[in-house]
Amino acid sequence: MAEYVMDVPDQVRIVEVGPRDGLQNEAASVPTAEKIALIRLLAAAGLREIEATAFVHPQWIPPMADAEAVLASVPRDGGVRYHVLIPNMRGYERALAVRPDEICLVCSASESHNRANLNRSTAESLADLATVAARARADGIAVRGAISTAFWCPFEGRVPEARVVWVAEHYAAMGVVEVGLADTLGAADPAHVRSLIRRVRGAVGCTVALHLHDTYGMALACVLAALEEDVTRFDSAIGGLGGCPYAPGAAGNVATEDLVLMLHRLGIRTGVDEAALRDAARLAQSLVGHPLFSHRMAVTSGA
Amino acid sequence: MAEYVMDVPDQVRIVEVGPRDGLQNEAASVPTAEKIALIRLLAAAGLREIEATAFVHPQWIPPMADAEAVLASVPRDGGVRYHVLIPNMRGYERALAVRPDEICLVCSASESHNRANLNRSTAESLADLATVAARARADGIAVRGAISTAFWCPFEGRVPEARVVWVAEHYAAMGVVEVGLADTLGAADPAHVRSLIRRVRGAVGCTVALHLHDTYGMALACVLAALEEDVTRFDSAIGGLGGCPYAPGAAGNVATEDLVLMLHRLGIRTGVDEAALRDAARLAQSLVGHPLFSHRMAVTSGA
Repeated sequence: MAEYVMDVPDQVRIVEVGPRDGLQNEAASVPTAEKIALIRLLAAAGLREIEATAFVHPQWIPPMADAEAVLASVPRDGGVRYHVLIPNMRGYERALAVRPDEICLVCSASESHNRANLNRSTAESLADLATVAARARADGIAVRGAISTAFWCPFEGRVPEARVVWVAEHYAAMGVVEVGLADTLGAADPAHVRSLIRRVRGAVGCTVALHLHDTYGMALACVLAALEEDVTRFDSAIGGLGGCPYAPGAAGNVATEDLVLMLHRLGIRTGVDEAALRDAARLAQSLVGHPLFSHRMAVTSGA
Repeated sequence: MAEYVMDVPDQVRIVEVGPRDGLQNEAASVPTAEKIALIRLLAAAGLREIEATAFVHPQWIPPMADAEAVLASVPRDGGVRYHVLIPNMRGYERALAVRPDEICLVCSASESHNRANLNRSTAESLADLATVAARARADGIAVRGAISTAFWCPFEGRVPEARVVWVAEHYAAMGVVEVGLADTLGAADPAHVRSLIRRVRGAVGCTVALHLHDTYGMALACVLAALEEDVTRFDSAIGGLGGCPYAPGAAGNVATEDLVLMLHRLGIRTGVDEAALRDAARLAQSLVGHPLFSHRMAVTSGA
């Protein structure tokens, strides 16, 4: 009915990260079977890319200790591509046994967040990840590279764009299919988003994706800014699951149901069914055992 | 630090509507002296346009029964312009005695919301408001015209743009300085915002302002869309106060502190001090006696 048509992409691909970025930060571990039930609902809602788990050290992130069991149990017959987070070669070797469709390498643009999160320098992470990427390519597994603290760092403040470009260049040299810019703190603003996307694209040829948290309520404004830069790949988490233990004050991921609503309103196809997402959001909330916040859930519950 | 500079206005004028749109919807009436204390903090934070109260029938909206007392008590020495909401001639006659700087006329674009809210048809409201506008011009008082349910109606769904244009044309004929498009339900999306702004501007010559609620988390994305259409006037409410008794499920107004943060991040001047806004938000929360939600407050409180 709107006569004005915005200059945004026709179609967007969403990577649902709730089962990983959401559940890894919960105090209580969710049983494997419940994680699978959630993943089934997400797949049933039409999500075709799901970050199912992380192959991280179980001592540091106990909720992800069942990574092999999760990936071995996901339904493989529905056309869903399963991504897993890989911080190092040890994680990759574990993952390979259960064959993810795509791996997401991760390190932080800011040195102090990388040390807090991964206990090494960013350069050391990148050197290790380069060997992982080479192995994955040889094994026929797609690789994307995520850059945490690509906008702000909880310890260092605003992260210089040149530093993010430096990490992106390393990923590009590894042959990743995509670089993901992660706003770990949820503090990015639309101008920052447009600026960084332009800088990174100017330096490397690969696709750029965005991973946003909604700490300051600007996540969907940042999505809009990214759409205007023709970005077509976004991470989100059902029910707004998430947060980061090494990013104090950070809120959850932008909620998949809030993202999908805006995209559909803008006339952008996602392949996702809004009503089915609500079922998944309700299950996510019951699994974590505490209230989650997405705008969509608040409206439905009358909160 | 961002090398990319967005094409948005340099400066924005905010009309703080918390004392009116926020407090009118609270179950418990806030004492007049407390309202004045809040208005003083808002003025101290640098807000220069404050909608202080509404001259509505005290039987229908008891929290606004002290409208004369509020306007008679606000500090008049600090360069703040005080707006008041006026739904009809009776309200105007009450307001005139205490001399507002600007009056905001109001009716709804959708017939059923106008009947629920004002107990008459939109055309009847507009006829009455035309006589109010004429009186106000003769009395030397500035007039703006607000259009409720300019995007969605809780009873009728999406409101045809032609209907909003029809109301805007009536306001323009009354000589208003500004037409305000109010997203009463908080369900507007960025494409709808851009489309309606273009339609209304194409039909009438006056300035267009936006009044947003944040039900679906798209408020700041809508602000961004409006900034890209060069809109420079926004309503917001401290602490995200607000809601509408005749718009079930609608959330509060976009929070002034969340709006100001994004505007400042985009390099847009507002004249408002972010730290001082937090004091006002805390007072607002204590006055209403229940938790308010703004992203800024959630971050500060560690929620």
